[in-house]
Amino acid sequence: MEGLSIEITSYGKAELLSVKEKSIDDSLEEKDVLIDVHYSGINFADIVMRLGMYQDAPPKPFVPGYEISGIVRAVGKGVKRFKVGDKVMAGTRFGGYSSVVKLPDWQVLPLPENFSLAEGAATPVNYITAHIALHEFGRIRKGDRVLIDCATGGVGVFCLQMCQAAGAETIGLTSSESKKSFIEGYGARAMTHEEFWSSSEKDFNFILNSTGGKSLKGFYDRLTKSGLLLCIGLQQAINQGKSTPFSIVKALVQSPWYPILKLMMGSKSVGGFNALKFFDDEEWMKKLLVNIEQSQIKPHIDKSFSSKDVASAHQYLESKKAKGKVLISWRE
Amino acid sequence: MEGLSIEITSYGKAELLSVKEKSIDDSLEEKDVLIDVHYSGINFADIVMRLGMYQDAPPKPFVPGYEISGIVRAVGKGVKRFKVGDKVMAGTRFGGYSSVVKLPDWQVLPLPENFSLAEGAATPVNYITAHIALHEFGRIRKGDRVLIDCATGGVGVFCLQMCQAAGAETIGLTSSESKKSFIEGYGARAMTHEEFWSSSEKDFNFILNSTGGKSLKGFYDRLTKSGLLLCIGLQQAINQGKSTPFSIVKALVQSPWYPILKLMMGSKSVGGFNALKFFDDEEWMKKLLVNIEQSQIKPHIDKSFSSKDVASAHQYLESKKAKGKVLISWRE
Repeated sequence: MEGLSIEITSYGKAELLSVKEKSIDDSLEEKDVLIDVHYSGINFADIVMRLGMYQDAPPKPFVPGYEISGIVRAVGKGVKRFKVGDKVMAGTRFGGYSSVVKLPDWQVLPLPENFSLAEGAATPVNYITAHIALHEFGRIRKGDRVLIDCATGGVGVFCLQMCQAAGAETIGLTSSESKKSFIEGYGARAMTHEEFWSSSEKDFNFILNSTGGKSLKGFYDRLTKSGLLLCIGLQQAINQGKSTPFSIVKALVQSPWYPILKLMMGSKSVGGFNALKFFDDEEWMKKLLVNIEQSQIKPHIDKSFSSKDVASAHQYLESKKAKGKVLISWRE
Repeated sequence: MEGLSIEITSYGKAELLSVKEKSIDDSLEEKDVLIDVHYSGINFADIVMRLGMYQDAPPKPFVPGYEISGIVRAVGKGVKRFKVGDKVMAGTRFGGYSSVVKLPDWQVLPLPENFSLAEGAATPVNYITAHIALHEFGRIRKGDRVLIDCATGGVGVFCLQMCQAAGAETIGLTSSESKKSFIEGYGARAMTHEEFWSSSEKDFNFILNSTGGKSLKGFYDRLTKSGLLLCIGLQQAINQGKSTPFSIVKALVQSPWYPILKLMMGSKSVGGFNALKFFDDEEWMKKLLVNIEQSQIKPHIDKSFSSKDVASAHQYLESKKAKGKVLISWRE
């Protein structure tokens, strides 16, 4: 069948992205689900891939995209969980920037009843990232002091809600005074980065860092004894609204190395992770996707761009102006 | 008053240690407790101090020792929790190798009813180390796969009991085939180091490492995604039953450094700690000491040496033959 998709054919700036017609193999294996995509989520990793700096990306040309929502168009003979017409959301390891996707059924999840299709596409990557960070790495508990440095982003919005549910004492950081009330709306204290660094707020049990680079040193110093500093991104690499291969390498070089002796003397832990690495792992995904259904947590959509405007969507995410999630829509 | 104590007067081998008479200031402040010491616990840190390699030790001459048990001899006017004749145990930041010690009352704890005085002196450092490692850093949960590489030591004995209480799936390692049944007695699986490294046991949520040095690399590889490798010691520095300044430096140099990018790519955490750093912290100690009273956990005493034989006691701990705790007795 014919469909639309957005491929990375050469590395570089956002303007290189565009929608093209593409032939899609719609033959179904036993456990396949074919989905008419309504929305595709955009993630920072997609930008790194577009620049040719993402280690695990396939060779170009390839279709990026880690999450979608849509309506089931067809199912393989062995699929019991879904039928044609069901609203669904899914994590996709690459290939999500498409108007039609085919996935094994364990990767697909019914859209929660109180979710719009847009909210569905905003959920898999950020929810799983937030959940693994707070509940697998951090294992946060009531009364923990938690610091979220990316509180207004897609992951941050889930983190704030999960911290509130866990009874943690949470501070969310933002680059902009105007976003503070957004953070406070999720029950956390809000500070700008400037306010935070000139304050004496410290003794955090858990710090979630998505900035990477030289920011890590300062955050490490603000941990309490037995605390964990977890790095999940290198947003420092976005410089004046753009990321370049140079700014990414700089962020990597400026990210510190931790000798065990330093950790022992400081009584601290450091960690890192890339949620996208969990997407290949059926056992993990089954466990995590169940959690989405059980939780009362919702994403916040900042803006949805028509698939024709994918370049603008990437530029907008790079501008750091977004609160919550940026999407591509295939039905507008 | 007159008492006995063991001072580090010059750095070097165990034979340099001996008991000497010492005048003790028995004037009491409001909140002081004066204790006739029955047992003093020996820790690996004492050996490192004896070699002059312990960064936080006071300048020599000084009395080492981090924990004691005994009977209250006198109390300051403001002490309500204890009276003369009470059996107690206490964490002491240095000064524990003495026949009489004076401490602020928050550092002192009533001896649990089912504990002997020997068990009391075997508890503070190892219990606090095990508790912080498993329940503050690791935050272990039912079903976690946990690996304890020092399972037959003083800390290990507490760890095995805490893992069993938490419902973790635990493997304890030992250098000797003959100690395996000791580990199994605490409900864990036992393996020698050789068996472990030639097995494919992996996917641990939490690994407690007290060996340090080059062992860390192999353990890191055996973590599951989101797992934590926690280093609490440098036992590699004990070489053929002895530790030397050279073997300690070698263990430090061979301990790896962890770049954040490696942690992100591997989705893992690493940490370290020195429980003795928590002994100065009244808030932490109050919280932790309460836990000892509530738990049903007991230490295992390997051997108690007369204070006159302190050199033999150090040598025995360095021999790695001990299971559980080695003590100095002041009443034999």
